[in-house]
Amino acid sequence: MTARGEQAFLDWLRTTGASREDILVPIGDDAAVMRPRADLDLVVSADAIAEGAHFHPGTTPEDIGRKALAVNLSDFAAMGAMPRFAFATAALPRGFHHETAVRITEGMRAIGAGHGVALCGGDTITHEGGLVLSVTLVGYVEPGLAVQRKGARVGDVIVVTGALGGSLPFGRHLSFTPRLAEGRKLATEGPPSAMMDVSDGLLLDLSRLCTMSGVGARIDASAIPIHADARRSDGDPLDHALTDGEDFELLFTMSPERLARVERNWCGNAPLSRIGVVTARGLTLVRDGRELEVEARGFEHH
Amino acid sequence: MTARGEQAFLDWLRTTGASREDILVPIGDDAAVMRPRADLDLVVSADAIAEGAHFHPGTTPEDIGRKALAVNLSDFAAMGAMPRFAFATAALPRGFHHETAVRITEGMRAIGAGHGVALCGGDTITHEGGLVLSVTLVGYVEPGLAVQRKGARVGDVIVVTGALGGSLPFGRHLSFTPRLAEGRKLATEGPPSAMMDVSDGLLLDLSRLCTMSGVGARIDASAIPIHADARRSDGDPLDHALTDGEDFELLFTMSPERLARVERNWCGNAPLSRIGVVTARGLTLVRDGRELEVEARGFEHH
Repeated sequence: MTARGEQAFLDWLRTTGASREDILVPIGDDAAVMRPRADLDLVVSADAIAEGAHFHPGTTPEDIGRKALAVNLSDFAAMGAMPRFAFATAALPRGFHHETAVRITEGMRAIGAGHGVALCGGDTITHEGGLVLSVTLVGYVEPGLAVQRKGARVGDVIVVTGALGGSLPFGRHLSFTPRLAEGRKLATEGPPSAMMDVSDGLLLDLSRLCTMSGVGARIDASAIPIHADARRSDGDPLDHALTDGEDFELLFTMSPERLARVERNWCGNAPLSRIGVVTARGLTLVRDGRELEVEARGFEHH
Repeated sequence: MTARGEQAFLDWLRTTGASREDILVPIGDDAAVMRPRADLDLVVSADAIAEGAHFHPGTTPEDIGRKALAVNLSDFAAMGAMPRFAFATAALPRGFHHETAVRITEGMRAIGAGHGVALCGGDTITHEGGLVLSVTLVGYVEPGLAVQRKGARVGDVIVVTGALGGSLPFGRHLSFTPRLAEGRKLATEGPPSAMMDVSDGLLLDLSRLCTMSGVGARIDASAIPIHADARRSDGDPLDHALTDGEDFELLFTMSPERLARVERNWCGNAPLSRIGVVTARGLTLVRDGRELEVEARGFEHH
């Protein structure tokens, strides 16, 4: 499907889904939240990666396994949730080696172990085509604490963790650290009014958060934290920071009062950068003293 | 990977997995069972299907979606568990139509609705290669009630639901009814000492149940329930019933006393057939008064 087709399909999914009392956060957020009983909010995310689109044929099996789980860990970070159990299915090309499957699993287990996540099940099948790895991650969050993409309010500050841009050419899209500790700290000490992870580029993801929240945003070019990898890339570093994909940093909104308190106690590995403010509508960028309407463009996996 | 490679990989997974107090049934059964808290056993299964291996290019999108969820429902039946929440990832070929994705989802939702299962999340990606659909199913079972593949005891009766063979040529592998009601009834009224679903052929799956339980089996050729589809197929109908894949019936073992009680109250849609008895070792077939050692061969998805 084209990116437009995928968006239309997601919109269809979201608007036609069953509403049920035990489903708190349905399709359309970083993860789903279910409440099987009053004292337990179950969190589940599912993400797939494919050869060619998310990693190149030369990527080590360990890095492929690591990434398949890491993108899901990043979804959990964006909900402020705690991951526990991972499930993986692999569609393997014909002639795939047992040793390679073992190394993929070892990459997955290594990053999982660092976050208390165990691989508990899955399935391997053989097919015509490149490697497709799908991971589903199951965990918890304190009842009512999950942070959604909707909830941003006019006047909230827009914040990102870490620095953005240039992730793909220099391999950070494989080696990134999911912001789980930061997501938990924000959820328990804030919480943010809305949060998501930046996977398709800041502008595109921010526009999604705004759409889900029914608000707009104004961001300040001089405040965007630009990664060293973006400066090493061809072209405008700011443009990379705004539109490159696969940063896997956290993007959130929070009232100024709460944010000041969170910043005072911040000890996360990734620094917090205030990049703008939530407005009533539109998406604008302030650069060199001028405020310009910007297009929500970003990274599409081809 | 070859079938032997897959088995070696699964054996490696099973023997190297982390042991953790909140993981009751790890990799190697029809589904995993986790115990996040004392009063809740969480059940999760994950299965993928791919074009060419599990459905042909001419299969309707609704049937593809139905099957992707149905194979997971069958895993839940085999645990005696209750499914609730489904998550799907789809790796789509380039040029895939939005309408087709909608129809796949509708097929998935339709069979889910009949069993109280809602589609709660997922991911779609585009890649080089055919359609790969991966579904993870999340649900519950009463603490301690999940029926595993291990646990069969010498002297237990071996039983299957429904009838076997000829599933693929006549489309039953797409239209089968997951034996959820039967699995629940067996778990709550028996329970079986061991249970699994028959997906790769009776002989191969029975040999797996025996291996997990550390026992053998003797089955009676004249007692095997042969499906009409097996009689319509070329070759020996019994051979089809013993080795064809994708039956999705339940195979279980139970003590003669418990089984007699279960049979008296049986009202499942699928009849129960006693096909043999659990022995100390080996896998033998009694046919025309002779007992022969049989090879654990079955269906491999190519």
